[in-house]
Amino acid sequence: MKTLNVSLADRSYPIYIGPALLGGDYIRRHLRASQVMVVTNETVAPLYLNRVVDGLSGLQVETLILPDGEQFKSLAVLERVFDALLKGRHARTTTLVALGGGVVGDMTGFAAACYQRGVDFIQVPTTLLAQVDSSVGGKTAVNHPLGKNMIGAFYQPKAVVIDTDVLVTLPDRELSAGLAEVIKYGLIRDAEFFRWLEVNMGLLLARDVAALSYAIERSCNNKAEVVAADETEQGDRALLNLGHTFGHAIETATGYGQWLHGEAVGAGMMMAARLSAAQGWLDPGLLGRIEVLLTSARLPVTPPENMSADDFSRNMALDKKVHDGQLRLILLNDIGKAILTADYDKQLLDNLLKEQCRGDS
Amino acid sequence: MKTLNVSLADRSYPIYIGPALLGGDYIRRHLRASQVMVVTNETVAPLYLNRVVDGLSGLQVETLILPDGEQFKSLAVLERVFDALLKGRHARTTTLVALGGGVVGDMTGFAAACYQRGVDFIQVPTTLLAQVDSSVGGKTAVNHPLGKNMIGAFYQPKAVVIDTDVLVTLPDRELSAGLAEVIKYGLIRDAEFFRWLEVNMGLLLARDVAALSYAIERSCNNKAEVVAADETEQGDRALLNLGHTFGHAIETATGYGQWLHGEAVGAGMMMAARLSAAQGWLDPGLLGRIEVLLTSARLPVTPPENMSADDFSRNMALDKKVHDGQLRLILLNDIGKAILTADYDKQLLDNLLKEQCRGDS
Repeated sequence: MKTLNVSLADRSYPIYIGPALLGGDYIRRHLRASQVMVVTNETVAPLYLNRVVDGLSGLQVETLILPDGEQFKSLAVLERVFDALLKGRHARTTTLVALGGGVVGDMTGFAAACYQRGVDFIQVPTTLLAQVDSSVGGKTAVNHPLGKNMIGAFYQPKAVVIDTDVLVTLPDRELSAGLAEVIKYGLIRDAEFFRWLEVNMGLLLARDVAALSYAIERSCNNKAEVVAADETEQGDRALLNLGHTFGHAIETATGYGQWLHGEAVGAGMMMAARLSAAQGWLDPGLLGRIEVLLTSARLPVTPPENMSADDFSRNMALDKKVHDGQLRLILLNDIGKAILTADYDKQLLDNLLKEQCRGDS
Repeated sequence: MKTLNVSLADRSYPIYIGPALLGGDYIRRHLRASQVMVVTNETVAPLYLNRVVDGLSGLQVETLILPDGEQFKSLAVLERVFDALLKGRHARTTTLVALGGGVVGDMTGFAAACYQRGVDFIQVPTTLLAQVDSSVGGKTAVNHPLGKNMIGAFYQPKAVVIDTDVLVTLPDRELSAGLAEVIKYGLIRDAEFFRWLEVNMGLLLARDVAALSYAIERSCNNKAEVVAADETEQGDRALLNLGHTFGHAIETATGYGQWLHGEAVGAGMMMAARLSAAQGWLDPGLLGRIEVLLTSARLPVTPPENMSADDFSRNMALDKKVHDGQLRLILLNDIGKAILTADYDKQLLDNLLKEQCRGDS
């Protein structure tokens, strides 16, 4: 078992990574009182809920099972969490446990941020994507029909418990989606890790335990460093959004849940790389390496067939990185070197969208 | 014009108190960009919205008018604020302006806390209650059918702009409700102010400008000191809740909006004082002074006729100050001296509820 630390003064917390952590005492040691509510979804519950509840024996444990899917990351479903907390008379000293992927983690974290103006919560991510990205760093949110993650809070968990055993049951498509965020760290700040991924993608897809553990640890390390330096995204934390402006537009335009978040980010990163090359900022020779790595991770590298350039423009205009009317994008100078800028050529972006979108033809 | 300061390190902000501030530049000087959304209600809009909008000429100003009343301080109405922000394409650099009483301030503040994980907001309170209490200190929330202020955030405004002119149009009942929170500061920490209120209640009810300004300033000063010492209510900030546990039970049980918040707090403070005396902690001779001051402010000193002891018990059990199953109450040792304790005699509380509740007979 490895322990990393997210350094945020009085909001610092550990990330535990290893096998067989679900039933251990890694949740229990971070509780403030005896009340716990484990929030999960209908896919994860039959697989892992009992293991977590058994590990909390002797405490006052309630469970709440939400529907599974990005389309349920809404204010309406969030209300069910508040209803359950109030009906169960959960006090300000209660702890919420988020057992699931990014949707469960984002919603449970946001519920914890708001319930009685803030109670403790612990992330227990069960997808690769949640383990390497969304469970670390305290970004919580729900979606709005007009934009992804538009309603939320920066609210840090008390601990992140990553049981690597759960990846055994993860569907292939979810594994690939998680690899998109893993590849992202290589692209934005860790060229050496990118090269490691080029060599080891086969092992990761074969679910080699050592390779997966290493990829999770190195990803969490990258994430923890970025978050510690810029908790509320005043600067460099935005680089973690490589591919996400294009990706969120895909998720919003196609309807939440059609494309997995990681799939949308995969295609989005490729679009960001292409724009960077068109701009002359990224060696076009590197486009091939990026495309090969994404493809080998079984991720899409082009947008959905039915999306138009206009679908992108309209949804990207609502991005949280819009600043004084200017849409800022994360672009690449090199593998391992990203920048946040509004200084790209808008015409090149238009050209890229038209060229990539078959929905226009 | 007087300026007070709420000292909270990088979250510090000014409170401006004086006449004719609405149309001045006190809002404008705290904007981060040119986007503004003024949120108000249907009662305040015809009176003061134009004055505020005129003061923001040249900026990109949108307005949103919500229904008026505590019963609309809900997640459903909050969604309308998010809808308007997204439809108006408000960016992370936008500023929300809360023009209204406690309901508008609490909801707008909570919307600001959540929109894009946090945007700026400015409080422009138009009721006495909001001016002396709810606009200062960063408590934001909406109600849940099972409990008041159960969903919210600690989120500080960038400024509080208190235009004392607006009290001219305030209904008598609202003026009295505000005086409940004014009297509260005297009871919990400012005996000298309590004596001043005993002498000057007539002037306040006659809306004497100098007396009202002094009461607002002294109340805000008390509030700012408490908040600066304990922003997130880990300790002494809870004392500001004198009468509120009884009061919230009244508001929840009678249906939000039947009793004004200040009226419920008035009756609640009297109940807290009676329990303190029954406990032997407060000189029973002081009960008369407290009752006279509340009555002279035209506030109720007994609970609603149709409430039963059980209505109180059930709703008080959901209070945010419940800790390890124990309900903590704010009680009085003296005028000007309050304590937070779970160490009172539960039987005396039961007796008090039965004696006070005519709904049981």
